[in-house]
Amino acid sequence: MKTLFKNGSVINVFTDSVEKKNVLIEDSIIIGVGEYDDSDADTVINISGKYICPGLIDGHIHIESTMLTPAELARVCLPHGTTSIVADPHEIANVCGSYGIAYMLEMSENIPMHVNIMVPSCVPATPFDESGAILNAENLAPFYKHPRVLGLAEMMNYPGLIFGDESVIEKVKSCRELGLHIDGHAPLLTGKDLDKYVSYGIYSDHETTSADEAKERISKGQWIMIREGTAAKNLDALMPIFEEPWCRHALLCTDDRHPADLIKEGHIDHIIRLAVKKGVNPIKAIRMASYQAAQCFGLNKVGAVAPGYNADLLIVDDLNTMSITDVYCDGIQSVKNGVTLPIKDPVPDLQMSKAVRFSFNMPKLKVVSFMIPEIGKKKCRVIDVIPGSLLTNELIEEIDFDNGKNGIDVDRDILKLAVCERHQSTRHVGLGYIHGIGLKNGAIASSISHDSHNLIVIGTNDKDMIKVANHIRKISGGLAVCVDGEIVASMPLPLAGLMTDKPAAVIAEQNEILRKTVKDIGVNEGIEPFMNMAFVSLPVIPSLKMSTQGLIDVNKFQRVDLVVGE
Amino acid sequence: MKTLFKNGSVINVFTDSVEKKNVLIEDSIIIGVGEYDDSDADTVINISGKYICPGLIDGHIHIESTMLTPAELARVCLPHGTTSIVADPHEIANVCGSYGIAYMLEMSENIPMHVNIMVPSCVPATPFDESGAILNAENLAPFYKHPRVLGLAEMMNYPGLIFGDESVIEKVKSCRELGLHIDGHAPLLTGKDLDKYVSYGIYSDHETTSADEAKERISKGQWIMIREGTAAKNLDALMPIFEEPWCRHALLCTDDRHPADLIKEGHIDHIIRLAVKKGVNPIKAIRMASYQAAQCFGLNKVGAVAPGYNADLLIVDDLNTMSITDVYCDGIQSVKNGVTLPIKDPVPDLQMSKAVRFSFNMPKLKVVSFMIPEIGKKKCRVIDVIPGSLLTNELIEEIDFDNGKNGIDVDRDILKLAVCERHQSTRHVGLGYIHGIGLKNGAIASSISHDSHNLIVIGTNDKDMIKVANHIRKISGGLAVCVDGEIVASMPLPLAGLMTDKPAAVIAEQNEILRKTVKDIGVNEGIEPFMNMAFVSLPVIPSLKMSTQGLIDVNKFQRVDLVVGE
Repeated sequence: MKTLFKNGSVINVFTDSVEKKNVLIEDSIIIGVGEYDDSDADTVINISGKYICPGLIDGHIHIESTMLTPAELARVCLPHGTTSIVADPHEIANVCGSYGIAYMLEMSENIPMHVNIMVPSCVPATPFDESGAILNAENLAPFYKHPRVLGLAEMMNYPGLIFGDESVIEKVKSCRELGLHIDGHAPLLTGKDLDKYVSYGIYSDHETTSADEAKERISKGQWIMIREGTAAKNLDALMPIFEEPWCRHALLCTDDRHPADLIKEGHIDHIIRLAVKKGVNPIKAIRMASYQAAQCFGLNKVGAVAPGYNADLLIVDDLNTMSITDVYCDGIQSVKNGVTLPIKDPVPDLQMSKAVRFSFNMPKLKVVSFMIPEIGKKKCRVIDVIPGSLLTNELIEEIDFDNGKNGIDVDRDILKLAVCERHQSTRHVGLGYIHGIGLKNGAIASSISHDSHNLIVIGTNDKDMIKVANHIRKISGGLAVCVDGEIVASMPLPLAGLMTDKPAAVIAEQNEILRKTVKDIGVNEGIEPFMNMAFVSLPVIPSLKMSTQGLIDVNKFQRVDLVVGE
Repeated sequence: MKTLFKNGSVINVFTDSVEKKNVLIEDSIIIGVGEYDDSDADTVINISGKYICPGLIDGHIHIESTMLTPAELARVCLPHGTTSIVADPHEIANVCGSYGIAYMLEMSENIPMHVNIMVPSCVPATPFDESGAILNAENLAPFYKHPRVLGLAEMMNYPGLIFGDESVIEKVKSCRELGLHIDGHAPLLTGKDLDKYVSYGIYSDHETTSADEAKERISKGQWIMIREGTAAKNLDALMPIFEEPWCRHALLCTDDRHPADLIKEGHIDHIIRLAVKKGVNPIKAIRMASYQAAQCFGLNKVGAVAPGYNADLLIVDDLNTMSITDVYCDGIQSVKNGVTLPIKDPVPDLQMSKAVRFSFNMPKLKVVSFMIPEIGKKKCRVIDVIPGSLLTNELIEEIDFDNGKNGIDVDRDILKLAVCERHQSTRHVGLGYIHGIGLKNGAIASSISHDSHNLIVIGTNDKDMIKVANHIRKISGGLAVCVDGEIVASMPLPLAGLMTDKPAAVIAEQNEILRKTVKDIGVNEGIEPFMNMAFVSLPVIPSLKMSTQGLIDVNKFQRVDLVVGE
């Protein structure tokens, strides 16, 4: 089947030009760009006055952060011109191990968006983590044979590499020996440490937050991903990288992006729009988001409107606003007049589906589970959340364990915090106190808690905490709010406790209800409690965090007691 | 072992800049570029006032055309800064088949130059060829597993692809499925035919002879190799390709280069020098000849002075003259003050060595072998060589077969030509006449006759022709001159009849003697008889050529009789 797109203007990423040319495709492949006419094709599509440009590529995304399945993500992202993503299934791998990676591969099979996978490099993320799996080099190796696996995902353990941790080096080496890509994650690393890190063959990074940092990295051979996600927004700081010669080694990515933002603002097209508004030539921005992203990852059939390339094509009304009307992936129309055409959901293997859908392996919690021994008044370490930041402070506060509320003091905004191990039925529960959330009553709980995604609970009283925690356990994961013994808002995430099997619109609506509900029970201004809660368990962002086995002083990278001096 | 190069200026191919930085290497890998000092290294090399730049890459070369073994080629090319080549063993494969490819791989193992191999796509070159082997997709497949095999070499059979020859498509597809590179060879192909050709995934070409042709190719996604060899010189015509944006998809190559030219003028450094003389920024030319060549072929560890890259380094006195003093390959010094350090010749497997060294499989020729039936005077097709060109004309001349010299007429410069099948003992001999060589007596013979490398002979009398042909047979290949029954000059090429096991200097000297000798026996001005002879058997360059089974009309692409009208 040959299709001709005629009378359009082609964005040429090799020559940085716009050419009045017709594009001929045969099945999934572009076979000609030039003076073709109706007689060359079975179907003719007149795109007079419009542009035809290569599909956009997200260089680094966690699908789980969107809470959507790959197929649903495609439904949301295709109208925004995304025809390829490079995804790191780090979150689901921390819950389900190899099954999680295999699941994401299966769930993205035969959907009209190219879902390329980088295998997670750091499962578990830290030695403090009680995750659902441990993935060593030998566990990752089989995945490298999969045609959509491009390499090793963000190597966060840069201290491990720099200080010569053998198991970390083994992961990197075994990937590099296959000639595959290794992605980096090393914020603020510079000079000799950066040299050492890069010399292991880590040739891209998405954690760059300043132009100087980006320039150093590029001069050392790294590709820079300009990230603009929901929380982390680096475009402004990295605008100088759109200049020559830096732009030749830069691409775009979102990393973590909330589905509501995807729906409302867009995806990679949104980043292009922002850049163009700031004066960047749209052709350059498109080149970075297509051909250069493909170059970075060694993808040799995507990223250009040229013979032999996949027919991943966008029909665009206006380059400056990136108003995309129609999208083709592998030559098949997937978006028509801005609307995604039906996509069939892949059906995963039953065994695998079970592992993902029943990812909770923990006994039911009882009131006693969250009890801290009543030892009178003590000076304690309290986690202090900071509005608009994932950083926390350590507060030293006097806690009266015998105050009848086991130390909780709503007036002083000191709430109880519990992180419950939920993978191996160890019954480990890390208990302590958190300041800055602002809840006046009820409790909230979530199975999204980086990076091991144990069950995390914050509350004004033990009863609601137990209730909401057991609710999340019962629905095999999700986000919920309990007030006065009743679940008043809930977002089930039955897939590994991270993703929904529902449409994005449902998630967006449930999210709105959750936001409204936590506001009703008094959450502080500037606090997104589920977002803050999700990072309270991640012991790589300073200062004080909570693990399943108690508090972690991130700066000292060691466990500390709740009570000071004990 | 850590070595520090200090006080030099580093050529940065990512940023197009020169940076005053020190370079630290550990064994074969660059581990740092920055403010390192003596305390970081075991050995310190002061390169004050000099430049340090990545080793140069020849994007397309036939080692056999240099008549040298890979190790000897390395000895010649290393002082010119070549640390990597991409070689197509097309010639030896036409003689020895898979053994020939395997031999070139073995003979280039562990030498201080990266010899990357592209497997030959067209063995035999045409259906008229009686070659030493037929290589189908299934014969090529095993080689793709070799770490130094990068893909499929110059796909000359573009009509085959365009008109859908299944066996040709199979070769291309099986390479592309592995994600490997396919190199092109499609001179003057343009428009829709070029689209069709490129759409098979053929993303480079070295046969581009004009800037417009190059620009069309680049706009369709091909990398352009700017070729400057011994016979084919395209630099002048392609100078506009050194401009942006074209230069971003261009690299340099030599294709076929005579050893005397390599010694006298240089290799890729010579092309850079020529370009710089014409006003090209040397940093750009170096970038094209290093990083970009690596990008074209998907080589991810060569082509830059950056952490993680192979320590393939050139120490250069002056960028404009590319005066290279020292060369390091994989961190080991291979050239010191312009002189190549000793290289150990690889010792090939005995079986393989036999196949290559005893490549002549033909019975001894007798006087009768070259006899054409004495049928009186007839109008005949005569090959007319053109000085300075590989093209030939077809002359129609009256030949008197009964003139006592079996039609040879030295006064009219009509000499006898024989192409003797030498691979399968078929006793096939193509016989006819050639005009324009100018020999007054004696005969010359060669085992270099493209692309099947049968034994080709031109002479003023049958006796000398038989003598010189049997001499070549006896020495298992080479070039020779016979006068009055005596071999007066000879260049033995015992390796497949194509290469010597002697040093380049010996070949250069023997070559000088051959040139002088043919001059003495009357060769015409502007004729390099062995060069012209080497292409008289190649039925893809118009107009009239000679095969082992008689004359070929190249334009009609069919066999024709010697006598007109028969």
